[in-house]
Amino acid sequence: MNKCFQWDQCILEHFFMMFLLFLKVVVIKSNFISRAQKVNVFLHVNDGSSLQSLQVVAGAELNDPLLTFGSAVEVSGILQESPHEKQPLELQADSIRVIGECDPVDFPFKVKKRHGLEYIRQFPHLRCRTNAFSSLLRIRSEATSAIHSYFKDNGFVQIHTPIITSNDCEGAGELFQVEPAGADEHFFSVPAFLTVSGQLHLEATAGAFSKVYTFGPTFRAENSQSRRHLAEFYMVEAEISFTQSMEDLTKVMEDMFRSATEHVLARCVEDVDLFHRHVTPGHRVNSMLKKSFPVITYTEAVDILTRSSEQFAFPSDWGCDLKTEHEKYLVKHCGNVPVFVTDYPYDLKPFYARDNQDGPRHTAAAVDLLVPGVGELCGGSLREERLSVLRARLEQLGLEDAYSWYLDLRRFGSAPHGGFGLGFERYLQCLLGVDNIKDVIPFPRFSRSCLL
Amino acid sequence: MNKCFQWDQCILEHFFMMFLLFLKVVVIKSNFISRAQKVNVFLHVNDGSSLQSLQVVAGAELNDPLLTFGSAVEVSGILQESPHEKQPLELQADSIRVIGECDPVDFPFKVKKRHGLEYIRQFPHLRCRTNAFSSLLRIRSEATSAIHSYFKDNGFVQIHTPIITSNDCEGAGELFQVEPAGADEHFFSVPAFLTVSGQLHLEATAGAFSKVYTFGPTFRAENSQSRRHLAEFYMVEAEISFTQSMEDLTKVMEDMFRSATEHVLARCVEDVDLFHRHVTPGHRVNSMLKKSFPVITYTEAVDILTRSSEQFAFPSDWGCDLKTEHEKYLVKHCGNVPVFVTDYPYDLKPFYARDNQDGPRHTAAAVDLLVPGVGELCGGSLREERLSVLRARLEQLGLEDAYSWYLDLRRFGSAPHGGFGLGFERYLQCLLGVDNIKDVIPFPRFSRSCLL
Repeated sequence: MNKCFQWDQCILEHFFMMFLLFLKVVVIKSNFISRAQKVNVFLHVNDGSSLQSLQVVAGAELNDPLLTFGSAVEVSGILQESPHEKQPLELQADSIRVIGECDPVDFPFKVKKRHGLEYIRQFPHLRCRTNAFSSLLRIRSEATSAIHSYFKDNGFVQIHTPIITSNDCEGAGELFQVEPAGADEHFFSVPAFLTVSGQLHLEATAGAFSKVYTFGPTFRAENSQSRRHLAEFYMVEAEISFTQSMEDLTKVMEDMFRSATEHVLARCVEDVDLFHRHVTPGHRVNSMLKKSFPVITYTEAVDILTRSSEQFAFPSDWGCDLKTEHEKYLVKHCGNVPVFVTDYPYDLKPFYARDNQDGPRHTAAAVDLLVPGVGELCGGSLREERLSVLRARLEQLGLEDAYSWYLDLRRFGSAPHGGFGLGFERYLQCLLGVDNIKDVIPFPRFSRSCLL
Repeated sequence: MNKCFQWDQCILEHFFMMFLLFLKVVVIKSNFISRAQKVNVFLHVNDGSSLQSLQVVAGAELNDPLLTFGSAVEVSGILQESPHEKQPLELQADSIRVIGECDPVDFPFKVKKRHGLEYIRQFPHLRCRTNAFSSLLRIRSEATSAIHSYFKDNGFVQIHTPIITSNDCEGAGELFQVEPAGADEHFFSVPAFLTVSGQLHLEATAGAFSKVYTFGPTFRAENSQSRRHLAEFYMVEAEISFTQSMEDLTKVMEDMFRSATEHVLARCVEDVDLFHRHVTPGHRVNSMLKKSFPVITYTEAVDILTRSSEQFAFPSDWGCDLKTEHEKYLVKHCGNVPVFVTDYPYDLKPFYARDNQDGPRHTAAAVDLLVPGVGELCGGSLREERLSVLRARLEQLGLEDAYSWYLDLRRFGSAPHGGFGLGFERYLQCLLGVDNIKDVIPFPRFSRSCLL
């Protein structure tokens, strides 16, 4: 328990201090073990600050049939060095009071039982009380914090890009529309949608701050219940002004990945270990960080796929989008480390991707970061900063009026810039080896499911 | 410019280093001032890292008619000590290249002109390029970071509570409903809404982690274009398990307010100063932090209002909800400092507020924090942790089935707990003295307006 250190300090300061603790009973190892020293009650209590519980020891007279797995207790006593190697301290209790009962028959989790992720997913309001999911949520919190720190330490301004928008960023479908319940006219006077990306709004602010990022929820009305899709998920998006080349972008992507991962591995040792040992045995992350991430072009990637003996379900000819199977193969081919793939076919990329003006295989300055186990983790591009080029493309797509504000960004002091987005749940999957995206977000929303 | 320090270090390391800078031209003081030392071009350039610009000096031969206010430039030269007191450094340019032109006639902001907040609000994609709004967004970013730091330093786990929910937290109307555009059946099988509060989900996780918080967007379909309302705004919400009294809650509320405010005042000196001098002259914050925040009960508040000679538009009898006019009066009455008001009438508060079981003036253990200029900034309560009391109230309201999962939290290891929510935009208004809530959020959404 992280708090042990604090308690230890308290002891030094107030040697005879009595500790009043409010804790959840996690495991009652045994209520009636009799020992030479007449200790008859052992409780493992936990306040959620770490995976490790605190052992409470007490005489048999403090036993209570209500001391069941899952209940909440108030314990007062003296914190002392433990005779056991596994824990530095234990609490010698003077009083134990059950403040919240828990019927062990009705409670869906059982003492000493390791429930599977799929089983606990049925109880979104309670699954955070299991070891696996409490570890996951502590890791998620720490990873969030690490990503914010990375950007802050590197001079990025955080922007709360809007959730409700009248733009359709990528011209894609699968949008959620937003109106007041029972409304018969548009609340915002125009149709309004949940954002699929904060990029365009971020580009607007990159025109003032040079380096900006956003970290928030994004949405896709994808009719899928697969292991890879959520209707509501978190994206980290960054924009950097005054880029000179694709390397300015891939450097930030790689640095952020490394920085966040090293931070989490250093700060969540026990929690990550629980996953790598028990939940997703065999998964390793450290090996991904040893070398700098290789960079290949899309054209090179297609060559690799074409030369491989692997049977793919989807075609991998030049001009086809890379599917997850292709991405996973490329990652393996490069030694199971994160891989950048750059310069995708121009026609596959949205209007804002910068035209490389090459040929005959016409590409755009777009980049994806592919990672082990997941495939695409990040997608980014240099943005088309040239007014005439951008205007021509928007005209071609019939979007010139809808995006006149976006053209304004190029009319008034445009600068070369680029950015990327990272799928935060996919990042957690990559970090922990978790197969199903529903197991790395507190309250998963997907087609036909919106529990609580 | 914050970067000056870095540049200075670079100079020490690479004494003859040439600086290649990409910057936005903010103010061209004068293109053709002739001076003894033959310096004819002065540019004020800014990369958004701070309010202060860097002065670029160059000979007349580097002048260019495209060097207009709002354009983007690439400058290379030598960074040197400035002969002027106002700035420690200036850049002696060897080359200046305009990389993004800006037509000063079409550009809505003019050199040396101080545009009002209402004027710049018309240009949501460009207003971050004004001094006032770039300062605002830097402050917003720093305040966000300060709030995260406060919670992290105090052992809170950050939870991403869901944006789309099938719950209606407060039983209130004004909900946005979410469906795919053109859908003819519920995407989630049930009606789904944008969250008005993450509280109930946060309570679920507080049952595992003791201290949790969330900081994200919340929504109200309020048909108002007033200075006080947004359809999309940010809330900071926290839940604390094992509370023993209301003070456990007010302490966190006060500490967080102080910690964030002190952090912002220390880190954003120039930006805050811009607001307090030029945008909202006379506004002061330091005086709010001098003493600990007074605490009065609702009943005492009503007595103060009743005894006052002020003419209120709304009644202030015991049992009536406090309106903004009442809240502002109470704040003034207490010396223009933040004030806690506790123990509101039971009937005014939602089902989850803890019943004080007093009488005949029946109250609940709810608390609001009222602040100068704004009124209600935070609302919180001890939550009803007693299963039988909570169940009886939900039955009375006919909500027992809808909230059976919430009752589960009390069935399985319930513990006394409480929490609160803070309106982040209102916090920024309080900090800076900004009158209109639309001026403290990057992209305001409200009735009939969803620009970009």
